[in-house]
Amino acid sequence: MIKIHVNPASTPALSVMFAANACGIEHEVMMVDLGAQAHRTPEYLKINPVGKVPALSDGDFHLFESGAILRYLARKSKSELYPVEYQARARVDQWVDYVAHHVRSPFSRVHFNRMFAKMFGEQPDEASIALGLKFLSVSLPIVDAQIAKQGYVASEQMSLADIALLATLDPCEILGIDLRAYTALSQWRDTLRGKAFYTDVHAHYGQDMGLG
Amino acid sequence: MIKIHVNPASTPALSVMFAANACGIEHEVMMVDLGAQAHRTPEYLKINPVGKVPALSDGDFHLFESGAILRYLARKSKSELYPVEYQARARVDQWVDYVAHHVRSPFSRVHFNRMFAKMFGEQPDEASIALGLKFLSVSLPIVDAQIAKQGYVASEQMSLADIALLATLDPCEILGIDLRAYTALSQWRDTLRGKAFYTDVHAHYGQDMGLG
Repeated sequence: MIKIHVNPASTPALSVMFAANACGIEHEVMMVDLGAQAHRTPEYLKINPVGKVPALSDGDFHLFESGAILRYLARKSKSELYPVEYQARARVDQWVDYVAHHVRSPFSRVHFNRMFAKMFGEQPDEASIALGLKFLSVSLPIVDAQIAKQGYVASEQMSLADIALLATLDPCEILGIDLRAYTALSQWRDTLRGKAFYTDVHAHYGQDMGLG
Repeated sequence: MIKIHVNPASTPALSVMFAANACGIEHEVMMVDLGAQAHRTPEYLKINPVGKVPALSDGDFHLFESGAILRYLARKSKSELYPVEYQARARVDQWVDYVAHHVRSPFSRVHFNRMFAKMFGEQPDEASIALGLKFLSVSLPIVDAQIAKQGYVASEQMSLADIALLATLDPCEILGIDLRAYTALSQWRDTLRGKAFYTDVHAHYGQDMGLG
């Protein structure tokens, strides 16, 4: 059976947890205790030599990078979240990558500095937070307009791009990032947060994430 | 015919130029004059609403994000750079994404601050450069080890991941980033820089890039 090695404190890992559910693929969730440095053990480095979550194991085959894992889960399960038609698939590729580079990357500046810096004995870097928020003020209107136009990020159908965006934005409230100005995005988010693929993850791990 | 909208000052655009050649797909190169703000014109925003290079046009179909464009070019041309076998393809996905997040992203801190900041009337941010170099000191040994082990980044065969890495590292010399400590990587780079898919791009655009 496919195993996903995750920790819900990582939003890329969260995207893999959502996607495994949404694809309807049988899988086992392997929690990696980041606090105990479980991602740095020799055993874990055999699964992911880069020492990060998420990772996937399918028998002897191991994979890391959340975008690659999302695509793998969807291809293996023949999920409509990653359409076969090549231009539709390219649009999903485009928005998965856009979310990673232009939403998750600036978001992670805020996420790290407002949530994790103190745990690592570092001072929050306010300039980095400001730059992250500035970049988000460019990219969030773009994804909001996409959703307003067609219902979902990449097309009129839900796709891996929606999963990636939903996971990225999951800690918004605890980070003090207010999405209410993005009306279509907020409504899309409320709807998806009611779906079983999402509530199932939060029912199990919400408290660990401070999101319960 | 496929059109690629590029400017060689952008390393993601450079990856698309290399890939279009390496896939052997017939294409037309549309130079986007970034200095003249050609990426902000209403005409260009119809091609790429995000206002960046690279982009691709295939008839009425438009695409942005270099990772999505690389995959599109390879799928359309049935190139071996993106193998069909699903686990081999997943490994290419993994390394294309690893290069984007862990090599190109920190590299761009150095690239922006040592090359472009002054053009935009900004002071180079030395702390950002230092952080970029620190992240590269983690990721470059990982790609170097991959290449040492098997010849190429994702497997024993050249793939889109090699194209992405080669393009990212292209401005190393003018940015003062010394790769000589990475023996396998340096040798791999020297070899690929002798290939027609690479020399053809540089013969046409090398001088524009300060790389001629």
